Amino acid sequence: MEQIHVLSVFVNNCVGVLTRISGLFARRGYNIKSLTVGETENPAVSRMTIECIGDAQIITQIKSQLRKVVDVISVEELKADAVCRELFLVKVRANDTNRTAVMGVAEIYRARPLDVTPETLVFEICGDRSKLESFFEMMKTYGIVEIARTGVTAMDRG
Amino acid sequence: MEQIHVLSVFVNNCVGVLTRISGLFARRGYNIKSLTVGETENPAVSRMTIECIGDAQIITQIKSQLRKVVDVISVEELKADAVCRELFLVKVRANDTNRTAVMGVAEIYRARPLDVTPETLVFEICGDRSKLESFFEMMKTYGIVEIARTGVTAMDRG
Repeated sequence: MEQIHVLSVFVNNCVGVLTRISGLFARRGYNIKSLTVGETENPAVSRMTIECIGDAQIITQIKSQLRKVVDVISVEELKADAVCRELFLVKVRANDTNRTAVMGVAEIYRARPLDVTPETLVFEICGDRSKLESFFEMMKTYGIVEIARTGVTAMDRG
Repeated sequence: MEQIHVLSVFVNNCVGVLTRISGLFARRGYNIKSLTVGETENPAVSRMTIECIGDAQIITQIKSQLRKVVDVISVEELKADAVCRELFLVKVRANDTNRTAVMGVAEIYRARPLDVTPETLVFEICGDRSKLESFFEMMKTYGIVEIARTGVTAMDRG
């Protein structure tokens, strides 16, 4: 069955490794839903979180291919109950007439206002995908000016 | 003068474009500090936020090279006062003896606990880099088990 799998890939912190990994997915036609990369507690090592879509067989193939890439240290598949979080910045149309209403909705989602102008509001919101997408749908009714999202980062519980 | 510049790159949402862009940076030895990519309000278009380091001349070069990459729609450099945000997941050692102390520090930073075990706590925290790094330094005193970060996403104010 095709579903989303989340991989944590630890790599040596050098520029070429991102190209090699994204090239592997592109060449083989593996489907990436999101990819994030950040330094770890050891600045020489980066952690990539890759959400990819496929059945069990494809994911096993992807993991085995990733392990062969130069500068890849380890590849782990996260459990289904792993903590997955993403951050959205959303710029919404809001003026004196509806700013209070927009802020009221944002509060329900615990989104934080970061910037305000006479015509717009910028919110920061983090959480799991379903919460973020629900917030985005609500904000659409006021008019989205732009959105910037980080992609998902994740770790196993416990 | 070498400093961090933030670029917003809008691209057609296809796998190959990440490889081409990261390959451009790798080949030319341009220094990427972080890269995030996420869908926009239009699912056919993704927005990449790239933090890169260099003097004004290098950044001008990078922008001009990026604009030539296939499937790149537009490249903008964000202003110095742009809203830049990142998300960290941090797993910290915490037991019955010090859990209250750890939670107290987390509260000061408005970090949210997502998971607890007898030996660990997982926090979600979002904000600008200096806040996140300061939180990370404080948590180091208790013992970091692991960290996962998304990299920076950003947009201009107003």
